[in-house]
Amino acid sequence: MRFGAGIWLFGQFVDRYATDAYGPPVSTVEAIEAAGRVGDVEVLDINYPFTEGVTVDEVRDALAANGISAWCITPHIYTRDFQAGAFTNPDPRVRAQALALCEEAVQVAKQLGAPTVKLWPGQDGFDLPMQVDYREVWRLALEGVSTVAAMDDDVRVAIEYKTKEPRMHMSWSTAARTLVGITQMGREDIGIVMDLGHSLFAKEAPADALHLVNDHGRLFTVEVNDNWREWDDDQPVGSIHLIETLEFFLALRQIEWDQPILLDQFPFREDPVEAARSSINTMKAIDAAIDRIDMAQLADIHERQDPLAAHRLVTELLLGQAPVA
Amino acid sequence: MRFGAGIWLFGQFVDRYATDAYGPPVSTVEAIEAAGRVGDVEVLDINYPFTEGVTVDEVRDALAANGISAWCITPHIYTRDFQAGAFTNPDPRVRAQALALCEEAVQVAKQLGAPTVKLWPGQDGFDLPMQVDYREVWRLALEGVSTVAAMDDDVRVAIEYKTKEPRMHMSWSTAARTLVGITQMGREDIGIVMDLGHSLFAKEAPADALHLVNDHGRLFTVEVNDNWREWDDDQPVGSIHLIETLEFFLALRQIEWDQPILLDQFPFREDPVEAARSSINTMKAIDAAIDRIDMAQLADIHERQDPLAAHRLVTELLLGQAPVA
Amino acid sequence: MRFGAGIWLFGQFVDRYATDAYGPPVSTVEAIEAAGRVGDVEVLDINYPFTEGVTVDEVRDALAANGISAWCITPHIYTRDFQAGAFTNPDPRVRAQALALCEEAVQVAKQLGAPTVKLWPGQDGFDLPMQVDYREVWRLALEGVSTVAAMDDDVRVAIEYKTKEPRMHMSWSTAARTLVGITQMGREDIGIVMDLGHSLFAKEAPADALHLVNDHGRLFTVEVNDNWREWDDDQPVGSIHLIETLEFFLALRQIEWDQPILLDQFPFREDPVEAARSSINTMKAIDAAIDRIDMAQLADIHERQDPLAAHRLVTELLLGQAPVA
Amino acid sequence: MRFGAGIWLFGQFVDRYATDAYGPPVSTVEAIEAAGRVGDVEVLDINYPFTEGVTVDEVRDALAANGISAWCITPHIYTRDFQAGAFTNPDPRVRAQALALCEEAVQVAKQLGAPTVKLWPGQDGFDLPMQVDYREVWRLALEGVSTVAAMDDDVRVAIEYKTKEPRMHMSWSTAARTLVGITQMGREDIGIVMDLGHSLFAKEAPADALHLVNDHGRLFTVEVNDNWREWDDDQPVGSIHLIETLEFFLALRQIEWDQPILLDQFPFREDPVEAARSSINTMKAIDAAIDRIDMAQLADIHERQDPLAAHRLVTELLLGQAPVA
Repeated sequence: MRFGAGIWLFGQFVDRYATDAYGPPVSTVEAIEAAGRVGDVEVLDINYPFTEGVTVDEVRDALAANGISAWCITPHIYTRDFQAGAFTNPDPRVRAQALALCEEAVQVAKQLGAPTVKLWPGQDGFDLPMQVDYREVWRLALEGVSTVAAMDDDVRVAIEYKTKEPRMHMSWSTAARTLVGITQMGREDIGIVMDLGHSLFAKEAPADALHLVNDHGRLFTVEVNDNWREWDDDQPVGSIHLIETLEFFLALRQIEWDQPILLDQFPFREDPVEAARSSINTMKAIDAAIDRIDMAQLADIHERQDPLAAHRLVTELLLGQAPVA
Repeated sequence: MRFGAGIWLFGQFVDRYATDAYGPPVSTVEAIEAAGRVGDVEVLDINYPFTEGVTVDEVRDALAANGISAWCITPHIYTRDFQAGAFTNPDPRVRAQALALCEEAVQVAKQLGAPTVKLWPGQDGFDLPMQVDYREVWRLALEGVSTVAAMDDDVRVAIEYKTKEPRMHMSWSTAARTLVGITQMGREDIGIVMDLGHSLFAKEAPADALHLVNDHGRLFTVEVNDNWREWDDDQPVGSIHLIETLEFFLALRQIEWDQPILLDQFPFREDPVEAARSSINTMKAIDAAIDRIDMAQLADIHERQDPLAAHRLVTELLLGQAPVA
Repeated sequence: MRFGAGIWLFGQFVDRYATDAYGPPVSTVEAIEAAGRVGDVEVLDINYPFTEGVTVDEVRDALAANGISAWCITPHIYTRDFQAGAFTNPDPRVRAQALALCEEAVQVAKQLGAPTVKLWPGQDGFDLPMQVDYREVWRLALEGVSTVAAMDDDVRVAIEYKTKEPRMHMSWSTAARTLVGITQMGREDIGIVMDLGHSLFAKEAPADALHLVNDHGRLFTVEVNDNWREWDDDQPVGSIHLIETLEFFLALRQIEWDQPILLDQFPFREDPVEAARSSINTMKAIDAAIDRIDMAQLADIHERQDPLAAHRLVTELLLGQAPVA
Repeated sequence: MRFGAGIWLFGQFVDRYATDAYGPPVSTVEAIEAAGRVGDVEVLDINYPFTEGVTVDEVRDALAANGISAWCITPHIYTRDFQAGAFTNPDPRVRAQALALCEEAVQVAKQLGAPTVKLWPGQDGFDLPMQVDYREVWRLALEGVSTVAAMDDDVRVAIEYKTKEPRMHMSWSTAARTLVGITQMGREDIGIVMDLGHSLFAKEAPADALHLVNDHGRLFTVEVNDNWREWDDDQPVGSIHLIETLEFFLALRQIEWDQPILLDQFPFREDPVEAARSSINTMKAIDAAIDRIDMAQLADIHERQDPLAAHRLVTELLLGQAPVA
């Protein structure tokens, strides 16, 4: 197992109530240093623009000093300027501004050696019934992503889907919807960020969605966390839905995923380094647990689609042998 | 507007608690007669096998006597024999049995002049984590539908998606997932039943899903009802989510849908004929309301994606002009 | 740990799609015999009326022959006659019929030595907005339960709350709502069935709800199962939400619950005896896991309300020590 | 109908993504002036502390200049200092700090003539399973509110319940849970803010919850908005769930509510004055619609609990008479 993180894990958190933020400001460089302290973080997904005054060279140096590579560059296309949408904004000037920011992100990706620009158009979509022409919003969503993908032959684009937040209904909502859009765009260099938490939130079976995306050749990167399935709570891995999390990591092994697995956590009230370590500790323990699964037994369960045998396998794996009655 | 219904609306209802059923048994012929009494039902989606002892000729006669056409034949691939799945059943003999039943349904469709066999594989999917090999279940789901589609050149197949019930996770779960599968199958004669209630239940924006399916050339038939968005309650049209229902019918007008719109209701505790009439009454009133929408104004709202203007348009349409302050 | 079950676990299942039932009919006596085969079932919650033709004496004999006691008698106040409500039915004759059936259940409880009549008014509530006068429905709900409680000094009444199904909105919906109603009724002999699955379904924290009910002196009986949190799926214990299930059993230990814990499962597609054993096996394993919790450590976590320490405790408990990096 | 608003409607919005805020900073005085521009806002629920540098005298003057009264003072017990809880914080010093802030809010309420201090302990609760001792958290929640209520005989306390956000599970979660707590506290001066949106979010029937709270003598104040029922979206009144909104206003009329109805909106992407006007316009239109309801007809529907008649009544009210077929 190889690990990474979204850099936001180590940043400053704010929400609409704690408007004075959950902690002090954190610069991009400080966040990289915090990531370095975790001890197992090989790669980072880095937001662009960086915090004020930080240069690409400073970021490159900080990454090198901490033994970390840039994995994705994720442009901030969901801040104030893009509140009414980035690619789907009704104003063509704002759409152009979003594309210009993505263009910069592509350049930064090349400068930092990151293979991927991640697009998370969190403001693209709609809020109320009757507000939008759905066909036009979808057309704009496709046009925006396609345009970014065409910017550079060496940088590929990964779409991170989520059903909502901050927009109440997001255009790129589920694994399947994103696959539909990717097929419509018809480019090979557009793929998907499979985020375990977003998949739980979308009420998907995450292991199922992972396979579907991978079988379509569109699994570009993987993020992990947990939530209460009704919001993107971004909690530690395996802290709520342990069984489905285990199944998701089993699926990653089945597809022989050998690239980093990135943490997507928002430790609002916790120390971020400890929060990252807690998730990594659990992932290692899950990995060890998967080693203990009798794969022939599992294959037999799957052959018969036997729910009770699956229940007993999970019970034995996570709770050990029950005492004889 | 043209109307139809799923024949089950007029049948006997049972659930896991009222095991003595909500009412007396109803034969297929009696159900057709009840549909005839509604007064506006042009077409029926008819379950096959019919109730015990009823022949195709009797059904044809009953339809003719009531001025009703067969719109879909829907095989019962979710009854006892198929409790562990029809197309995705782990037992190849059960899968063959499901296909044989579908073959009969195709023949009945031809005999009754119905253009479509509807497939609703309500038992296909899984119940628990770790129970199934998701790739294999999906492969079987595709194989089953493809096989039915290949049975006859004149009868097309429409898939009715739903996220769950009776299976806790159904394979054909959302509009987008179904489109993904249809693309994988690569046949022109497989389309989608756009069921307003199933779309609400899947937390889709139904008008958005309708356009997406239609723009892919896969809108084969339309069903309508309402629910509380957390279960397939099959309640009267517009009884809970009136605004989104209105938006769905507006989308039907935009795509110039001129085929029947079928009721998919389960009036457990009500008279079915009255329940159907209540929905049809509401649909006619919605249609008249749509006539009153200033389409230039709506286009302007959509151009600007303006939620407050959308809110005011809906307020004026449904509540009339508020008194001047 | 002592175990019991709702007798329905061993009965015949039907739903609105598999109207030919998931299996053959099972008489009350046969269901008791199946319960006996599980091996750990001490008590049963028994539906009344029994299946056709079965007498109280036969039930008493079957229980004795299988070493099982009657724990609750649960009248069928949710079948056809009560489809529009039992205690809240708009027709006073139906309300009287419901009370008469409860009166019989009270008598049967005395004859079988069951201390409790369980009331699960699954049809009491409403389906659509604007359908009911909420105050009147609530008044009727309270009146019905109070009347049953007053029937006999030796038999107490336990209310099983659930948010919905079969009624789309049930009057006794959550632990807190039920406590409010119990306070309004002002009787000491009315308590609550704490059903783990119904609590998950209501989006409660089940351990929290258990303590709240117990601290009000209203915890009369306990039922367990698991579900996907959006429907009462009645699946094996700990098969989906293992961590919260563990926490619920920890809470049972904290309150020193020494009475039976009853299975509330619907093994639609499985062998019921095996389904019951699978849950009991998991509960024993959970019990053994709780023995391994360092209670001083847990107290410290709770003193600090430390989510990461809770995460690590659960990880270590369920996944074992992760390998050193 | 009399109207008011939460002052936050006119303030600056930020969330965890648009960390540069959706608009410029707005001082408390500027927000009052914006409220004044709406034209129908009689009262305000005012957050305390005010924005930096604003004094009580300045607030009093601004209110007077805009013809607005102070309705509630709502202390900011959910900002950075209280991120791990206000009344339920594990640290007694933070709990004391929260109470000190509430004491100031009580004094400000008296100075501004506001009858009520509103408590919305948005950080009180927990995030993960196994994190807290639920009994202790509930004890602290009760202790905190009781202590504030005891601070002054002339200022009463209203609890605003919400199921979650920002805390993932909030202690004061539903109407019924809050009533249970109020009963436990045993004081007459503690009541409830009935927030239509929070009630929808909690999957309550809002009109039912309103009556329940009012019948317990605990309806202290009313807030309104709409949402998608899975998050507290704080959208314009009646923009999504129009039928249930209408039913809620009907319930307000039934209980003869003659006090202001306060907007609780977060117009992230809209002009706040226009957003407020849009809701007020809809509420006036709803009020006019309620005038058109035949109350004898409604009483008859309720007497029979007739869902189809309710459906027809709503159809006629909102869509007008459908054309004769």
